[in-house]
Amino acid sequence: MAIELYWGSGSPFAWRVLLTLEVKGLAYESKLLEFSKGDHKAPGYLLLNPRGKVPTLKDGEFVVYESLAIMAYLDRKYPAPALFGRSAEETGLIWRAISECECYLVSAGDKVIRPVFFGKGLDKVDEIQQAAQTIRQELAALNQLLAQANWLVGSQISAADIAVFPTIQLLLRAASKEAAQPLKLGLMPLSQTYPNIAKWVARIEALPNYQRTYPPHWRT
Amino acid sequence: MAIELYWGSGSPFAWRVLLTLEVKGLAYESKLLEFSKGDHKAPGYLLLNPRGKVPTLKDGEFVVYESLAIMAYLDRKYPAPALFGRSAEETGLIWRAISECECYLVSAGDKVIRPVFFGKGLDKVDEIQQAAQTIRQELAALNQLLAQANWLVGSQISAADIAVFPTIQLLLRAASKEAAQPLKLGLMPLSQTYPNIAKWVARIEALPNYQRTYPPHWRT
Repeated sequence: MAIELYWGSGSPFAWRVLLTLEVKGLAYESKLLEFSKGDHKAPGYLLLNPRGKVPTLKDGEFVVYESLAIMAYLDRKYPAPALFGRSAEETGLIWRAISECECYLVSAGDKVIRPVFFGKGLDKVDEIQQAAQTIRQELAALNQLLAQANWLVGSQISAADIAVFPTIQLLLRAASKEAAQPLKLGLMPLSQTYPNIAKWVARIEALPNYQRTYPPHWRT
Repeated sequence: MAIELYWGSGSPFAWRVLLTLEVKGLAYESKLLEFSKGDHKAPGYLLLNPRGKVPTLKDGEFVVYESLAIMAYLDRKYPAPALFGRSAEETGLIWRAISECECYLVSAGDKVIRPVFFGKGLDKVDEIQQAAQTIRQELAALNQLLAQANWLVGSQISAADIAVFPTIQLLLRAASKEAAQPLKLGLMPLSQTYPNIAKWVARIEALPNYQRTYPPHWRT
């Protein structure tokens, strides 16, 4: 039985899994849910994922959700290429990079992205500026790291790159919106602010089948 | 060279690593940092962990921080007993449980624990009650799961149990404080509110060497 991936356009968490599947060259059936139609809250979907979130992966009879869990599952089930390290040390550094992304970049990113996309809380100027400061610190650290390496950990793409990349893309998209201009986030243009991250983004965008993972509604 | 663990009393993240080391029966040198003395911000420590947080693990020349990263490293370096699953499916479910803990329980827990312990923001009644509601939902789900199983995933203790346990203990400690009483969190006594979680807590407390992992300042 084929792998089925339930995902939504623009979800950075779903994007991680799409990239994982493509990097591993795995065939999968794309189940694109429409958030606007409430597909993710439909009874049939809630049976697969009671939290009503994306992504969810079904592989034969096995169902798993939470993006990092799906990635860890896929890496163990379909080991080539190894995305969680080829040594214990690499494994540790990859999960460190992922944890740092979750604890610092994703949570600070959320405080900027939500107001910009949904227009709610744009008046919480202090909170947004504090989050923007955290984001700039985290990006500066990544930029420094990528001055000496093509990938975040080790000599090839890993789960660290795949986990971090969609959040960066979402941040850049938010930063380019008109609603973000008064906030002066200081993130753009990436090639000037964080040139090594810009090159790393281009490296991922050049992966075979990258276009298949790109959020459909971002094209329009 | 021995494993060195830098940790702080009462940090649930450090507690995870202490439990991992004990469950694996690994010898380690305990480096207990005193937060009140600023040990975690001392220049020597910042060389190991620039974020100035705990835990940090040093194994020979290799240094890694972020609790889940340390756990993943240790499990790959010292595989017995396997804490991240004995099959791809178990691996997926273990990381799912950990991700759910991080995304829902830890973040909601933080909104209750901080005000209770540090007295700041106790007036944010709505935010605390909303967080308490999330906590109760998450605990109810765990309690239901533990009605049919001794451990969160599979037939033996795993990284899921080890990652979740310290947060539960910290929540219980917060809920038992005098400052928490007016909040009516509805978590205690655990044996009545969530009896299966209470039994699971007792199961972990009965592990050999559990006492070595118990926060020293909680004894006084």
